Amino acid sequence: MYEVEIKVPADLDATRERLREAGAERVDARRQRDTYYDAPHREFAETDEALRIRREVPLSDGEATDEEAATVTYKGPLLDDASKTRAEHETGIDDGEALDAVLSGLGFEPAATVEKRREFWSYDGFTVTLDAVAGLDEYVEIERTVGAETEVDAAREAAVAALDRLGLDAAEQVRTSYLGLLLAAADD
Amino acid sequence: MYEVEIKVPADLDATRERLREAGAERVDARRQRDTYYDAPHREFAETDEALRIRREVPLSDGEATDEEAATVTYKGPLLDDASKTRAEHETGIDDGEALDAVLSGLGFEPAATVEKRREFWSYDGFTVTLDAVAGLDEYVEIERTVGAETEVDAAREAAVAALDRLGLDAAEQVRTSYLGLLLAAADD
Repeated sequence: MYEVEIKVPADLDATRERLREAGAERVDARRQRDTYYDAPHREFAETDEALRIRREVPLSDGEATDEEAATVTYKGPLLDDASKTRAEHETGIDDGEALDAVLSGLGFEPAATVEKRREFWSYDGFTVTLDAVAGLDEYVEIERTVGAETEVDAAREAAVAALDRLGLDAAEQVRTSYLGLLLAAADD
Repeated sequence: MYEVEIKVPADLDATRERLREAGAERVDARRQRDTYYDAPHREFAETDEALRIRREVPLSDGEATDEEAATVTYKGPLLDDASKTRAEHETGIDDGEALDAVLSGLGFEPAATVEKRREFWSYDGFTVTLDAVAGLDEYVEIERTVGAETEVDAAREAAVAALDRLGLDAAEQVRTSYLGLLLAAADD
């Protein structure tokens, strides 16, 4: 499985309008609040690991519903720099606050929070995600998963063309994660 | 809330027979597999903390059903030696194996496993638990929660009397946890 993904800065209202005009389908909307932790015994920035609790609420008409789901995710160090392979382990948890307290007890400290409202659209075989990230600009991600490495180039070309039809320019691609962008903004 | 609890070595078949004769009700039966972890940055034995994943399966006619539930629990250091107060945080998790992989990735290593079959009986206002612990003898725990410290002595006397009626001797009380008993047995 290979993931083709391009993220660009965007005006979400304009992109939403183009998606509607193109007959794209709005699939889902959620608010995600991600807390990233520092470890007491390692520098995750150096080891390239991450530990995250995600709290997620479905949005209905832009309003949060009361069904919060929480997930804990660990991303291990890159095993292979070329393919960006890394171990990733994840499970749903009943109570995000309780797991936060477990981690705090063990000496892990919340280091950064990324909060975003995401709208997921289905368009031309891609998932198009409209992201309003607290403290950052608006972004659009376009994404498709392909089964073989030989399909990656064609999928990427199709993604560039789809972005173009939505009035977006793949040349403005941002490769930094939202966490990275927030940390960079905090350093300014 | 005060918990009055006495644990004694017992013959479970004999105790079960006495409970039946006394008209006690068997409430539930479960197999619990507890994995305790060592930390990469602290000696839990010295700090008196514990990190545990419990995997639990309801037993029906002594057979495991397929609904495994998993829980993660962190027990903090004793805050007050007299009252044995400590912070405890716990949450259910969807996938015990995934959380084990998260902890392993972070450098926490499984240090000990306690596996037991537990039958819970309701008797005379107490919960009586029949525990068959893998690698140890059989034990019975009798337990009641009271709301005020002034009720503790009376509840303890009632527990001693109830144990006596079940053919068990409170003077044989074992205060060590099953984990402690297993680690002590391994040291022999």
